Amino acid sequence: MTDVSTNMRLKLPVTCLILEIILIILFGALVQYDHGTDAKEWHNGSHGDYNNDFYYRYPSFQDVHVMIFIGFGFLMTFLHRYGFSSVGFNFLIAAFALQWATLMQGFFHGMHAGKIHIGVESMINADFCTGAVLISFGAVLGKTSPVQLLIMAMFEVTLFAVNEYIVLSALGAKDAGGSMTIHTFGAYFGLMVTRILYRPNLDKSKHRNCSVYHSDLFAMIGTLYLWMFWPSFNSAITAHGDDQHRTALNTYYSLAACTLSSYALSSLTAHDGKLDMVHIQNAALAGGVAAGTAGEMMLTPFGSMIVGFLAGIISVLGYKYLSPILEEKLKIQDTCGVHNLHGMPGVLGAIVGAITASFATKEIYGDGLADVFPDVASGEIQASYQGVRQAISLAVTLGIALLGGLIVGFILKLPVFGAPPDTICFEDSIYWEVPGEEAAHHDDQLTTVRTEESEKLNS
Amino acid sequence: MTDVSTNMRLKLPVTCLILEIILIILFGALVQYDHGTDAKEWHNGSHGDYNNDFYYRYPSFQDVHVMIFIGFGFLMTFLHRYGFSSVGFNFLIAAFALQWATLMQGFFHGMHAGKIHIGVESMINADFCTGAVLISFGAVLGKTSPVQLLIMAMFEVTLFAVNEYIVLSALGAKDAGGSMTIHTFGAYFGLMVTRILYRPNLDKSKHRNCSVYHSDLFAMIGTLYLWMFWPSFNSAITAHGDDQHRTALNTYYSLAACTLSSYALSSLTAHDGKLDMVHIQNAALAGGVAAGTAGEMMLTPFGSMIVGFLAGIISVLGYKYLSPILEEKLKIQDTCGVHNLHGMPGVLGAIVGAITASFATKEIYGDGLADVFPDVASGEIQASYQGVRQAISLAVTLGIALLGGLIVGFILKLPVFGAPPDTICFEDSIYWEVPGEEAAHHDDQLTTVRTEESEKLNS
Amino acid sequence: MTDVSTNMRLKLPVTCLILEIILIILFGALVQYDHGTDAKEWHNGSHGDYNNDFYYRYPSFQDVHVMIFIGFGFLMTFLHRYGFSSVGFNFLIAAFALQWATLMQGFFHGMHAGKIHIGVESMINADFCTGAVLISFGAVLGKTSPVQLLIMAMFEVTLFAVNEYIVLSALGAKDAGGSMTIHTFGAYFGLMVTRILYRPNLDKSKHRNCSVYHSDLFAMIGTLYLWMFWPSFNSAITAHGDDQHRTALNTYYSLAACTLSSYALSSLTAHDGKLDMVHIQNAALAGGVAAGTAGEMMLTPFGSMIVGFLAGIISVLGYKYLSPILEEKLKIQDTCGVHNLHGMPGVLGAIVGAITASFATKEIYGDGLADVFPDVASGEIQASYQGVRQAISLAVTLGIALLGGLIVGFILKLPVFGAPPDTICFEDSIYWEVPGEEAAHHDDQLTTVRTEESEKLNS
Repeated sequence: MTDVSTNMRLKLPVTCLILEIILIILFGALVQYDHGTDAKEWHNGSHGDYNNDFYYRYPSFQDVHVMIFIGFGFLMTFLHRYGFSSVGFNFLIAAFALQWATLMQGFFHGMHAGKIHIGVESMINADFCTGAVLISFGAVLGKTSPVQLLIMAMFEVTLFAVNEYIVLSALGAKDAGGSMTIHTFGAYFGLMVTRILYRPNLDKSKHRNCSVYHSDLFAMIGTLYLWMFWPSFNSAITAHGDDQHRTALNTYYSLAACTLSSYALSSLTAHDGKLDMVHIQNAALAGGVAAGTAGEMMLTPFGSMIVGFLAGIISVLGYKYLSPILEEKLKIQDTCGVHNLHGMPGVLGAIVGAITASFATKEIYGDGLADVFPDVASGEIQASYQGVRQAISLAVTLGIALLGGLIVGFILKLPVFGAPPDTICFEDSIYWEVPGEEAAHHDDQLTTVRTEESEKLNS
Repeated sequence: MTDVSTNMRLKLPVTCLILEIILIILFGALVQYDHGTDAKEWHNGSHGDYNNDFYYRYPSFQDVHVMIFIGFGFLMTFLHRYGFSSVGFNFLIAAFALQWATLMQGFFHGMHAGKIHIGVESMINADFCTGAVLISFGAVLGKTSPVQLLIMAMFEVTLFAVNEYIVLSALGAKDAGGSMTIHTFGAYFGLMVTRILYRPNLDKSKHRNCSVYHSDLFAMIGTLYLWMFWPSFNSAITAHGDDQHRTALNTYYSLAACTLSSYALSSLTAHDGKLDMVHIQNAALAGGVAAGTAGEMMLTPFGSMIVGFLAGIISVLGYKYLSPILEEKLKIQDTCGVHNLHGMPGVLGAIVGAITASFATKEIYGDGLADVFPDVASGEIQASYQGVRQAISLAVTLGIALLGGLIVGFILKLPVFGAPPDTICFEDSIYWEVPGEEAAHHDDQLTTVRTEESEKLNS
Repeated sequence: MTDVSTNMRLKLPVTCLILEIILIILFGALVQYDHGTDAKEWHNGSHGDYNNDFYYRYPSFQDVHVMIFIGFGFLMTFLHRYGFSSVGFNFLIAAFALQWATLMQGFFHGMHAGKIHIGVESMINADFCTGAVLISFGAVLGKTSPVQLLIMAMFEVTLFAVNEYIVLSALGAKDAGGSMTIHTFGAYFGLMVTRILYRPNLDKSKHRNCSVYHSDLFAMIGTLYLWMFWPSFNSAITAHGDDQHRTALNTYYSLAACTLSSYALSSLTAHDGKLDMVHIQNAALAGGVAAGTAGEMMLTPFGSMIVGFLAGIISVLGYKYLSPILEEKLKIQDTCGVHNLHGMPGVLGAIVGAITASFATKEIYGDGLADVFPDVASGEIQASYQGVRQAISLAVTLGIALLGGLIVGFILKLPVFGAPPDTICFEDSIYWEVPGEEAAHHDDQLTTVRTEESEKLNS
């Protein structure tokens, strides 16, 4: 990998332009406005304009959108020399992935008479799929070229859509907030990719794989937006009414409980009791991941808090004790620790979802059962079997993610994508014009002159 | 205080874990979904899903949520060595306070057959109560341990709920945006706490009680989010329809007018006419505080702008002339100047509210009078008496805040909470693993090597 | 200009206070709550509270508000010594402009029986008008005093309202997202102003007209908020129902396509293939500008993507090749390159709008035609004539912007506003108390002491 030029002058433009032109052609051939977006279709009915789904999904969509671009983007700016790439590549691959996801998800569950119909719901789903890609990005952060990332996104979005179709449509599992389809899938896919891309000499870039004071503050912007808007994420595509309302509330309490257990464990596991920014930036979010499947169910605030509480503990322990083992023994170099934030909490969320589904009864859900578990409500299956569906879905997701990551990892190993050498990982200046800090220092000497001058003027 | 270890290894985890476990147990025993959140309850009626209160409160809730976590959190990052603590402790105590507030506010005005019912409205109220705690945090910023802050939050939330109950339920005052219950209460509570915790030798940490260039920019993120979303804050729990609409509009114009008067006074009170970031970051927000009570009333845009204009002037003058006096004469060390942003503007808002209420008539409000002043609309009381209620509420709020702050201040003085010594206040490294800036400098030397190397690669 | 004191102590306060007092008086005389905001009016009907327009416009309004204050404000923080002014003056002139715009726009299209009626829609329109002023601010960034900016805002808002009235009301053009009225107008107005204010010796400040690492990251906050919320911007005042829904969707795909072409061109035009932050921060947004007119039309996702794709290409090429020519040959010193982000993409958007309008048919729009092109739907005019209206509107906008900029430029040249001298442009310390970085360095030496001390404490 290291003997290949990292100059992107042809590789990146060609990749971007070809991908975008293909997207445009496919959109031209296949994509149409859906019923709520098309002028003729919408006016071809007797509903009021205020009943357009736009008003009941779009605010949630925008919250999700902020999570994707600001949340994920800034969360990864903690590296002190990789802020441009963190935010900038996040931006690039998200902008690509959401277009590609519109097509892929449309193929599998949005076709109407040979056309893909799109509107606010497909926009949310495309952002969700993009979220999985960004989770995988976290695992390989600092060690990949933008071309590799676009190629990875292309394959991962495709496999995401396949897995989502199997889990939600074929198996009939529920996973509104994506504990399985987004978090578990994105994490284990990314972990397998980073395993295949293992760099034995990565320690040569070790001094750049760390944060500085202000880069940690930038990362907190990402953390907080993810934390605040996670209730919108989990509830964005649940059924209208009590379902969205309940999902948001469950997620809110799961996150609050998770925050306290994360702080507790972060302090407890440090010999001097000092809090570690890595834990606060990441583990405090695990409660949102873990409420992704069961959030729409009658989990109760009590249950949500227990889930969040456990997720925070698991996540900090993962960062502290498991990540070093994974790196040393299994050769998994997981830059952002996505295994601790998305992997294990995602699996926890899937298990909680399976258990909660097993105990669904008409007595608890009333007529609302049809919204959450239609097959249970119709009497087609028992609640316990819904639990089995959920468990199978977790296994399928893990299988597709790991197998997919394996294949895609080997594709990304091809020495044509301009990956950085081991000695210059976690470094913006490979792919970006970087201004450096000198300007500021040079300027400090000018300050004296300037101040005198400006004092004259200010008199 | 100074002879006690600041090592948090046991204190902080034990406090967090015990508090969270108590919360979980109490939630399990007492808390239920409300009508709009419970699957069975919601489907047990004939309303459409689009009538769920979620759609008419949740966007406002998310704006408030951003104010609490990003707004307050980043506003306090202006200190150059206290950014982790500002954002991080803000995060911790907010996550705790919103859970505790759900219970405390539920006890006082949300009980149904022995259970506390929760949904989006209780979520907003919990965030509001959290806001008061964060205001108090601003007064003691840099001088307290996270354990002290959690203990303070526990007591303050409780007293907030008591005061809110007396003001809104027992006295029948109106205070939708919390000029009294949130801002006045939070400010005077915090000021009394910091008075009790007076540190005679705080000047030993003076060199750290200031900003640097980028810390001021981070703080502006907080300022602007508070400023932009304040219309949502004040209108978040007013009655639906014209009331929410009007409250948002009044607040918007109050803030705009306040911004101009803040800039004017900031420049006017500097000998060289230069703007002071402290004023811009804080005083420009006073218009939102001052519109907190009267915002839902028929204050008119004209009235709102006068209120905002005055609030900006008062606030800058407070920062410039009153704060130094309070510190020297009354020994009130108010780190963020909450007296100027929340204290005085809160009292102003309460007075404006009392006056505006006194002039409420059926002629001005029409049938809308019942939404804003139900007791006046029903003929039970005169509008002038509503004004008296408002005035009494201000007095009660001040009394409970000051007395509560006194007691809680003495509790926090107990030498077991790991408060920092006078010489190391406003300093993250006491409680956080801090990366330092060295990495960046060290790296500057590497840049040459790196650039050469990467130029080779880029050929 | 250079021989005049830059001391703002009297100029700025007097300007702010007089402007605000005039605003307050005019609001008192002329402004009233509209039907949805007034307690009496609203309750004087038989609509439910959930039908208040607040619920169908306010979430979009808040997104627009974030774009104005955070988006524009932080986008301009890329300059390494002008962050306070970028965010701070943006804040000041926006707070003024939105009040003044309420009056000016009200005069031209909001008068009811001699009164200006205001509510959420006027709030959005005021923010839109403010957006145009901030675009012009981008052209003169770093070279003007706050007093100049307020004067410019006063005139520009007035001319904006005149132009908007001519384009939308007199000519009957459509321009929901303001490709013409906001972006083209703001850009060419600002370009003419900066041409008139040409500084031959500006290269003396050249060393300050650049970014540092963290200032570019702050700017990305602005970029991403503009990018994410642009769908809300373009759809904020379109008709309810399918129109808002469609506009948001079109803008979303236009931006996504634009991002890929911007990255491609940025890398392609650099000799070493490295991405340039200036392009990413700006050109990736051109897709939103270019979808401003046609976004509400049946442009299709396919058409939107083509428009965005082209906009990104044009914008990067403008930054790379056209801006240096404009500066050298035409003496246009365009600090932020607004010609590339708002000027050319705005004209592109206007042209796309004219073409798309020409092809509007009842067959495509169904009964929705009346929402988008009422005069075409009523049979009053042909669709092709709507296209002509759009084209004339572009010409009118360009004319008013350039002529207005010419006059206002000469007004701003008057040597009484405290403009900075050529040697101290792009510099905060002229107008702000600036803390400097020394605190941090000074502190580094303290770290050793502190750490030892705290280690003792932590034992």
